[in-house]
Amino acid sequence: MTENHLELVKLVNNRLAELQYGQDPKELYEPIRYIMSLGGKRMRPLLVMLAYNLFKDDPEKIIDQAIAVEVFHNFTLVHDDIMDNAPLRRGKATVHEKWNASTAILSGDVMMVKAYDLLLEAPGNLKQIIKDFNEAAAGVCEGQQMDMNFESLPSVSEETYINMIRLKTAVLLGYSLKLGALLAETSQSNADLLYDFGVKIGIGFQLKDDMLDVYGDQEKFGKQVGGDIISNKKTFLLLKALELANEEQHDNLQFWLTKKEFDAQQKVKAVTKIYDQIGIHELTAAKMNEYFDMGFEALEKMEIPQEKRQSLKSFAAYLIDREK
Amino acid sequence: MTENHLELVKLVNNRLAELQYGQDPKELYEPIRYIMSLGGKRMRPLLVMLAYNLFKDDPEKIIDQAIAVEVFHNFTLVHDDIMDNAPLRRGKATVHEKWNASTAILSGDVMMVKAYDLLLEAPGNLKQIIKDFNEAAAGVCEGQQMDMNFESLPSVSEETYINMIRLKTAVLLGYSLKLGALLAETSQSNADLLYDFGVKIGIGFQLKDDMLDVYGDQEKFGKQVGGDIISNKKTFLLLKALELANEEQHDNLQFWLTKKEFDAQQKVKAVTKIYDQIGIHELTAAKMNEYFDMGFEALEKMEIPQEKRQSLKSFAAYLIDREK
Repeated sequence: MTENHLELVKLVNNRLAELQYGQDPKELYEPIRYIMSLGGKRMRPLLVMLAYNLFKDDPEKIIDQAIAVEVFHNFTLVHDDIMDNAPLRRGKATVHEKWNASTAILSGDVMMVKAYDLLLEAPGNLKQIIKDFNEAAAGVCEGQQMDMNFESLPSVSEETYINMIRLKTAVLLGYSLKLGALLAETSQSNADLLYDFGVKIGIGFQLKDDMLDVYGDQEKFGKQVGGDIISNKKTFLLLKALELANEEQHDNLQFWLTKKEFDAQQKVKAVTKIYDQIGIHELTAAKMNEYFDMGFEALEKMEIPQEKRQSLKSFAAYLIDREK
Repeated sequence: MTENHLELVKLVNNRLAELQYGQDPKELYEPIRYIMSLGGKRMRPLLVMLAYNLFKDDPEKIIDQAIAVEVFHNFTLVHDDIMDNAPLRRGKATVHEKWNASTAILSGDVMMVKAYDLLLEAPGNLKQIIKDFNEAAAGVCEGQQMDMNFESLPSVSEETYINMIRLKTAVLLGYSLKLGALLAETSQSNADLLYDFGVKIGIGFQLKDDMLDVYGDQEKFGKQVGGDIISNKKTFLLLKALELANEEQHDNLQFWLTKKEFDAQQKVKAVTKIYDQIGIHELTAAKMNEYFDMGFEALEKMEIPQEKRQSLKSFAAYLIDREK
């Protein structure tokens, strides 16, 4: 990230440290302060502010609206973690682990309400801001349901997979950028192009995520490399491997996918070897670049001074090159 | 309910039968259509329309906003039923029983988004409509958390209990009435008085609920009479009994509250007998009437023609006299 990016993230984190959400009963509001304090890249509020900054110079004015998207995102994490039975989030206990599932459901529900609340003082067309927010929010839920459905399917087509990550991850990144445009009250065409840019780099971002889970550097990655392989998670890498494997590779993959007891490291090594034989790393990188390129194309179409685009381009570059 | 009430409820049910919420993935949207089809009194949308009708004659114009509150209410039922581990809702399988907890969490989340969506085409001040909605929605969650907290407390004061039911039940009824006023763009004072009326009759409504669970006529009640006694639910009746019991009655109550194995009918009979000795039925009825009277007082303060108040008064009378 650039100096300017880091400064905006600092602005976000300072405001987040102030926000209380509510006090009583404490069992409801403590989990919110907890999950919001666990950190993260703060990508979504950063994107709101970067988009706003293309048109206006006072990003501190829209900090609460930027944070609305972060609160919503963290609400989805709290609920997803219950559904996925996940013990850890950002290296710390998940809300349902630290408290219990009921508290995680209910605190999550209030977080959604607080996200809408943070949008309310927005400059610009409130109705459109909330309408588009609703569309992105419903999309995220649809994507999560699709992802859960995938668990019980033998395989999934590339198209269906991309549609799932578009909904689960990319539309909220697209909305973040569009929100910045709506708050700055720029043209509908600029707002739509920013949305498109966000959705495309959002898909690229998730493909990078899938890739890092297998090919990341353990020292830098933060999570366990190979986690998706161990849990048979239907990622782009696995789906492509299932699609392109020859008979022997296919049998070999199925062997590991159906094996109930195994040595985790051995499974990761074996499946990665099949991926390598098929050239999955290169294929995924190529697909990722394809989406980032489509994003850059949308950016080029915007009616703004050329140099203004730079901050979004460097942010996308950071997403492409990141190692965690 | 009066003819006019029943006609408005019919309008609500017809519109509900049309609403699709979304299509794909079907696992996400089917549970929403299911829970919304289970019926219920449709009290909240009816209150929106009755309040609107005090000032305007075209309630069909605001039917979607009225339904927003019903969708939100049903969302809270879906999530509460997970937390309470409830197998049945309106005599049918709950969403988490018919599908699973993950689907119930996620479908509930989307219902909240759809509730906001249904508010968007509202006439009137959208910002205030959503701000007040958020306040009521957060209140409902706070009330539910308090109710859960009560389970692990030995007892709860009357004041704390009334505050819990105010949040869990009454503020949404108050909001429904206020929403009708906001949609009709009447004075802030009328809107506030309607809110106050709704909160007060909402508290009365919940006290009636507590009372029916013990003193209802099994033929008419629909649920199992005595259910709250069997589960040691901290209702107004139990709290008052714990507060007012003499030593012998207190010991007797504690005996049944702590007994792990018991015959359900025998427990219901024994606890009801203690309630009768203390005069809990009359006490609860008096408290209920107190709140309904406070509600009527708020109604009297409104600046509307006297005869206009009648529809709200008869609805409150129906709530007081209902047997299920």
